[in-house]
Amino acid sequence: MSKLYGACVVAQSGGPSAVINSSICGAVETALAADCITAVYGSLFGIQGILDDNLIDFSKEDPKEIALLKCTPAAILGSCRLKLPEYTEDDSKFVKILDTFKKYNIRYFFYNGGNDSMDTCAKVSRFMEHSGYECRIMGIPKTIDNDLSGTDHCPGFGSAAKYIATSIKEVRRDISVYPKGSFTIFEIMGRNAGWLAASAALAGDEGPDLIYLPENVFDVDAFFEKAIPIYKEKGCCIIAVAEGIKDKNGKYISEYGSDMAKNIDAFGHAQMGGLAGYLAAEGRRRLEGVRVRGIELSLLQRCAAHCASKTDVEEAYAAGKAAVEYAMDGITGKMTGFVRRYNDGKYVCDVKLFDLDESANTEKPVPAEWILPDGEGMSEEFIKYARPLIEGENNMAYEGGIPRFAKLKKVKASV
Amino acid sequence: MSKLYGACVVAQSGGPSAVINSSICGAVETALAADCITAVYGSLFGIQGILDDNLIDFSKEDPKEIALLKCTPAAILGSCRLKLPEYTEDDSKFVKILDTFKKYNIRYFFYNGGNDSMDTCAKVSRFMEHSGYECRIMGIPKTIDNDLSGTDHCPGFGSAAKYIATSIKEVRRDISVYPKGSFTIFEIMGRNAGWLAASAALAGDEGPDLIYLPENVFDVDAFFEKAIPIYKEKGCCIIAVAEGIKDKNGKYISEYGSDMAKNIDAFGHAQMGGLAGYLAAEGRRRLEGVRVRGIELSLLQRCAAHCASKTDVEEAYAAGKAAVEYAMDGITGKMTGFVRRYNDGKYVCDVKLFDLDESANTEKPVPAEWILPDGEGMSEEFIKYARPLIEGENNMAYEGGIPRFAKLKKVKASV
Repeated sequence: MSKLYGACVVAQSGGPSAVINSSICGAVETALAADCITAVYGSLFGIQGILDDNLIDFSKEDPKEIALLKCTPAAILGSCRLKLPEYTEDDSKFVKILDTFKKYNIRYFFYNGGNDSMDTCAKVSRFMEHSGYECRIMGIPKTIDNDLSGTDHCPGFGSAAKYIATSIKEVRRDISVYPKGSFTIFEIMGRNAGWLAASAALAGDEGPDLIYLPENVFDVDAFFEKAIPIYKEKGCCIIAVAEGIKDKNGKYISEYGSDMAKNIDAFGHAQMGGLAGYLAAEGRRRLEGVRVRGIELSLLQRCAAHCASKTDVEEAYAAGKAAVEYAMDGITGKMTGFVRRYNDGKYVCDVKLFDLDESANTEKPVPAEWILPDGEGMSEEFIKYARPLIEGENNMAYEGGIPRFAKLKKVKASV
Repeated sequence: MSKLYGACVVAQSGGPSAVINSSICGAVETALAADCITAVYGSLFGIQGILDDNLIDFSKEDPKEIALLKCTPAAILGSCRLKLPEYTEDDSKFVKILDTFKKYNIRYFFYNGGNDSMDTCAKVSRFMEHSGYECRIMGIPKTIDNDLSGTDHCPGFGSAAKYIATSIKEVRRDISVYPKGSFTIFEIMGRNAGWLAASAALAGDEGPDLIYLPENVFDVDAFFEKAIPIYKEKGCCIIAVAEGIKDKNGKYISEYGSDMAKNIDAFGHAQMGGLAGYLAAEGRRRLEGVRVRGIELSLLQRCAAHCASKTDVEEAYAAGKAAVEYAMDGITGKMTGFVRRYNDGKYVCDVKLFDLDESANTEKPVPAEWILPDGEGMSEEFIKYARPLIEGENNMAYEGGIPRFAKLKKVKASV
């Protein structure tokens, strides 16, 4: 394969994570050092920046700030949720993308995101092939939800999992200080797959007493019948629920909270509630005199760079770096991802290539055999799978007692 | 002053914090090494453990586990909220305390907590003086609320402040990734004093756009009139509110949320809502089509040992250590606390003695001149005051990717 000379563009999309910028750091540092890559651009707000000719020039950035991306949460280039059609249906956006690529002689495109981003990658890749414009297009995975197919796990998951297990362990200590402690429900992200709620189990015997994932049907009455005796025996109880748990009719339990909120609407107020709020309200009704708390980990769980997993940060970097290296070697239309092996029993993660379409269109649930029945938590196989992903603490930069994140000048690209 | 030989007992009370165990570590390690202290006991569940003869023997603990208390959140000995009367009104509980003290020859009592704990200390101290039983009684301060009078600041505040500023800075990055981001309200602890909500300002230009403390009257309409234009201009907005904000009639704003919840009660459901929930619901009503989030930092902010301030951890340790040293020197009926000075512009914290009664009975609000008008944040004087308290990161022990906290055997004391 002969070398392909030209510029590259990196972009990010979907929900941010604690380590998505580490992938961008890996890609950008590698591209800046590559002899065949003539310019390194960043597209602002995902693919939208390419459509709008809104690119920045990474050569104008201080390398120290680029290096700080390894410990900077959220998407430094901004994100989007734009879903492209197939070019065969409507090629207008693809024509615009091609215009921008031609304008800057972009020959490498790296898109860092989740399922939808891999879908975008695959579609752009097909269009470029169809149009005959030589361009290597690679996906770099990211999702705290850990539900991308193919890859062993996803960058972002380990750090969110570490934050969740750490926070629950800390709260366990907190609610255990009184003989009669609180009944505490943690609402954890995960609409369709319960990987994050499952990761609460990594806190071991200081983790939740019960864990409920969207992979199984959730029954409100059965839940309280199980949880209340635990509270009565131990004097406190912690439950981890994934936001996406549903009842036997497929109705989200969080919708019960919205139904309650709709009742409020009659009084002229807007929605409040949510899953943790609903279950806590139900808990108060059923456990009179007990302090019942709903704690929604909300955005905290996906941007907690201060509690990032070093393993996750390094792997995210490696996924970005490898995408650039593979592309320079002639690969296109693929996603980098991870294959796990054990070397003398020690976890090793290798970066490999995966099919974009598979990652785009299938979601990976938590295997049924890893989920103990009746909310009783996760199997040893799950712990063995997840433990290495949360190992190690990232070297954060601090200034004035708080993390120092990367500051980019974001100088507009010009030709 | 001749040496007083005898046993000592340490206890904790009030709400836990990230560093209250560091104070216990300082007291226990110092007491174990002291020649005149013949035994070191811990009372389980605050003063209640002394009333119930429920003491543990620290000589039976592994010194490594005791050392781990420096990075272990919440009250390792358990807590209580028992309020003692004056012995002149009812001395029955004091007689029981004296019985336990005599049984174990306890001549030193160290009580680690907030206002109420200092009140308990003062009352026990007065009774012991009255009864003629020689016993040295010292308070060791603790409160994330930072509202104890006398001392410059309180152990626990710095770590909670660091967590709050860090988390808000991270969430600021997260909500800024889309051109149209979210309107996000952080509910922060602080019923009567706004020190913790104020500490959000330590995140600087990545902190909240607006901060509201209980020290000032809160007006819901004026708040939205101020906040909505900020959202429209910046595409996102972060607001930090203390849980204790009140309207001009002295009604807690959180009660508006409970009023909404009471409406739900008519439908057979129990309370949900709270301050962040209420303001978010109001925000959704006033900002149609905008993603509005309420994030309650809840217990997370007071037990986040993984994000503790090294300064806070060391000072908490010093407060516990000094209490034992002062008591051995003959001091009784006092609280250790902090006086700040600057050495060549560098913050230095000295441990000094403070009056128990003053600390017990007066609360220290945030000075009015440090609060900018109309929710616009905190003055430079506040930042100068608070910044040193959050400096430095604690050396946490990790095991399997999550913090390793102290595990005590809690062997029952015997004579």
